[in-house]
Amino acid sequence: MEKLLCGADLGGTKLSVGLVRRDGSLLDKETVYDHADKTEGQTVDAIGACLDSLLERRGLGKENLLGLGVGFAGHLRFKQGVVITTSNFRNFKMKNYPLRDEIQKRVGLRVVLDNDANAQGFAEYSFGAGRDFPGIIFLTISTGIGAGIILDGKVYRGMTGTAGEVGHTIVNPQSDIRCGCGNYGCLMSHACGLSLPRLVEKKLAAGMETTLPLDGANLRGTIDGRWIGRGLERNDPLCLQVVQECADYIGIGLYNLFQIFNPPAFVLGGGLLHWGDIYLGRIVDKFYALAGDMLYDDIAIRTAALGDEAGLVGAAALLLEDE
Amino acid sequence: MEKLLCGADLGGTKLSVGLVRRDGSLLDKETVYDHADKTEGQTVDAIGACLDSLLERRGLGKENLLGLGVGFAGHLRFKQGVVITTSNFRNFKMKNYPLRDEIQKRVGLRVVLDNDANAQGFAEYSFGAGRDFPGIIFLTISTGIGAGIILDGKVYRGMTGTAGEVGHTIVNPQSDIRCGCGNYGCLMSHACGLSLPRLVEKKLAAGMETTLPLDGANLRGTIDGRWIGRGLERNDPLCLQVVQECADYIGIGLYNLFQIFNPPAFVLGGGLLHWGDIYLGRIVDKFYALAGDMLYDDIAIRTAALGDEAGLVGAAALLLEDE
Repeated sequence: MEKLLCGADLGGTKLSVGLVRRDGSLLDKETVYDHADKTEGQTVDAIGACLDSLLERRGLGKENLLGLGVGFAGHLRFKQGVVITTSNFRNFKMKNYPLRDEIQKRVGLRVVLDNDANAQGFAEYSFGAGRDFPGIIFLTISTGIGAGIILDGKVYRGMTGTAGEVGHTIVNPQSDIRCGCGNYGCLMSHACGLSLPRLVEKKLAAGMETTLPLDGANLRGTIDGRWIGRGLERNDPLCLQVVQECADYIGIGLYNLFQIFNPPAFVLGGGLLHWGDIYLGRIVDKFYALAGDMLYDDIAIRTAALGDEAGLVGAAALLLEDE
Repeated sequence: MEKLLCGADLGGTKLSVGLVRRDGSLLDKETVYDHADKTEGQTVDAIGACLDSLLERRGLGKENLLGLGVGFAGHLRFKQGVVITTSNFRNFKMKNYPLRDEIQKRVGLRVVLDNDANAQGFAEYSFGAGRDFPGIIFLTISTGIGAGIILDGKVYRGMTGTAGEVGHTIVNPQSDIRCGCGNYGCLMSHACGLSLPRLVEKKLAAGMETTLPLDGANLRGTIDGRWIGRGLERNDPLCLQVVQECADYIGIGLYNLFQIFNPPAFVLGGGLLHWGDIYLGRIVDKFYALAGDMLYDDIAIRTAALGDEAGLVGAAALLLEDE
């Protein structure tokens, strides 16, 4: 029997571990939601426990697995398998934590550890919206903005392993909106979930009104992608403007990536895509308006096809990256 | 005898053809300055004539050459060896012109045709300021801004062959300065030779004064990198401010490329580097201010080492790219 792949997606809200066939289809998975309250070591153990449980109920052993790919929401030293830092977990920063080797010790399998956006991008490239292309630029637009750069069938990771931090590129140096990174005017300060409260605040301060209820005392706790989405459904003018502005910045981001990479395809994923056609259409329009006659070949702009499983499936697929 | 390389640099002001040793050193070259008044076909013939003359005076034949690499100032379809368009020549646009095959017919050698910034970047990577690194991002800041992206020893060219057009990335969407590409606020509209007259005009309009003589009737013909350089020498406050602003934008550009590529090294070339340490120092400072604690490994920022020969030598070196 051909060996199965195994993937894990270790994020701030949930930990999923799954058995994946070579064609990218999911055979079985386990998901837990309480890992973020734990310590580093307990989290490593939770991955191992999920895997043990999966193997037991499928009547499989470790000898049936090619290895374990892990997608992680944080900055990594890829070659060393070490977490540099992460801000996505309550109880730990995993500062300089040798996560890959710790998982390897626990599960007794070859482990590949990569950034979650890289894993998602590689999944879309291998099995999803990007499978028809020799490479893609995958952009995930959610609470934050991440990218997976797939060139000629391989994830491009750079010197340390932190390539693809497109969210931190400066797109408006005159901006008064500050990102968590400390800089003003990066893509993340204008066009992701984290930026929404500030964008709404600015419109309210400028006298715009919204038809949606606002918890004035806790604007930052109230406003997120879903709140804006509800506004879109009822044609709230403030929400519509926020969506348009976010879309314009993402369009600029895509255009910049086009000029840099001249890629055959973009794949867009992440929660804000739920805003629908009004959002995606505006992104695409902005991109083509900027690209104008500098675009000499067709470029595909597709939405992600694999949904929530992309991180897990992509992490598993990374076991085959060098084949 | 090991075969020699041959390189040509076909730009708007001059055409150079040279014989290059495998270590990147130049054995001999010919340069002509009247090619831009000619037709496409005559330009192809001028390359062939330069090569014939070089071979004759060195007592060599075509059998002593591995091939001919050509660096060209324009947009190319790399795989096809076709010029899409160029705005650097007086008499021709070379629209969809099969330049590689036309040269090949004339010279009877294997020809590689690439963008001039790619050739320069590959030269710096192979023999110059980037030779200690597994890859570099080369940026040339001159009349325009171009880049050569060298990843793991290969030029990254993208789908069509137009990757690396970093000059056209939007860095200020609120800008009122328009680039020749039609967009506002791209890097080229703020930080290259072409943008200098407009930057000076804006400062004059805002009431700033310069100690340099100005030909009011022909501001655009007067102001270039050298004019600003003369201002720097005499501490002209307007020129100093223009240089600082240009440097800040290049610093932003480098920072954005760092977040995208996480490269081990940047190499900076091009005429505006003659502005010296006040310019380069400000670029570097801006870069590190933005990168802050997101830079986990040392990154080298070096100035180009090969000078005017980089285009020719790099084009020749491209003959060895796949070895």
